[in-house]
Amino acid sequence: MSELTLRAVPITRERFAPYGDVIYASSDSRNAMNDARFEHFSRLADIDVDTESGGVPSISIARCKAPMTLPYRFDLVERHPLGSQAFVPLSRFSFFVVVAPPGESVEREDLRAFVTNGKQGVNYHKGVWHMPMIAFEEGQEFLIVDRGGNGENCEEHTFGDPVVLLAE
Amino acid sequence: MSELTLRAVPITRERFAPYGDVIYASSDSRNAMNDARFEHFSRLADIDVDTESGGVPSISIARCKAPMTLPYRFDLVERHPLGSQAFVPLSRFSFFVVVAPPGESVEREDLRAFVTNGKQGVNYHKGVWHMPMIAFEEGQEFLIVDRGGNGENCEEHTFGDPVVLLAE
Repeated sequence: MSELTLRAVPITRERFAPYGDVIYASSDSRNAMNDARFEHFSRLADIDVDTESGGVPSISIARCKAPMTLPYRFDLVERHPLGSQAFVPLSRFSFFVVVAPPGESVEREDLRAFVTNGKQGVNYHKGVWHMPMIAFEEGQEFLIVDRGGNGENCEEHTFGDPVVLLAE
Repeated sequence: MSELTLRAVPITRERFAPYGDVIYASSDSRNAMNDARFEHFSRLADIDVDTESGGVPSISIARCKAPMTLPYRFDLVERHPLGSQAFVPLSRFSFFVVVAPPGESVEREDLRAFVTNGKQGVNYHKGVWHMPMIAFEEGQEFLIVDRGGNGENCEEHTFGDPVVLLAE
């Protein structure tokens, strides 16, 4: 068994651009709204959902039931060919994402790991391979914005050998 | 000047159904996800955005800059004819919404006021009249899921006399 070790780097818009969007209130996307009672950070992520196949963009919540710890060992990644998928924490907490570019196949060597700063969410672009979400505390909640409805929208790939995710 | 007084009632899915969705993790919409590591509360709100007019469903953030207090006086409501609009707090806080059914015109007497319990978001259905969002503490953030892009997607109506929003 040959383990591949991944170290997470802090997520930034630039680093994550090949895989998706980083969702947070940043000064470079600021506007006023409602007579300047709010600052508005516009279009941090677009929702890209295939509706011809019967899908509809929708909002869900996921609540962590079985917390994980690092180092975290996994051998499975998934992708959603019919739509983007956003995860935004509903309280301040950091989380880790592991991604690889979209495509029919994926190799362990294509994987990159990122860690958020507690105020950021992510939006995986359509078809981007990613590790299924993990969280570190029971009860942590993510708001999810993705494709609802019927259709084959989850492909999985299992690697022959495991990957080990470490902190920075 | 004839003031109309509105008292907010706690929001529930049933009470709010004529106007939109209430977004929170409730036991009646629970599924397992990722090998049961998460509880999944599915399709709490659908995003209903007119894309033929050049719109795209997207994710934004609004951050409160000028906090308000109750009683709160206002005379303007707005509606978005081209799309639904969801507001989900990015930390635990209560907020107030004032709504009236969709339609070409709106009267003060059609308005209803609701207050959330701190863990809930709302999704206004397309065309529902609503008071522009207010918040009570500087820095409070809402995640917004609505229609991005060009097009005439905001209609305003100003009442001749003001409305006064009170707590319960």
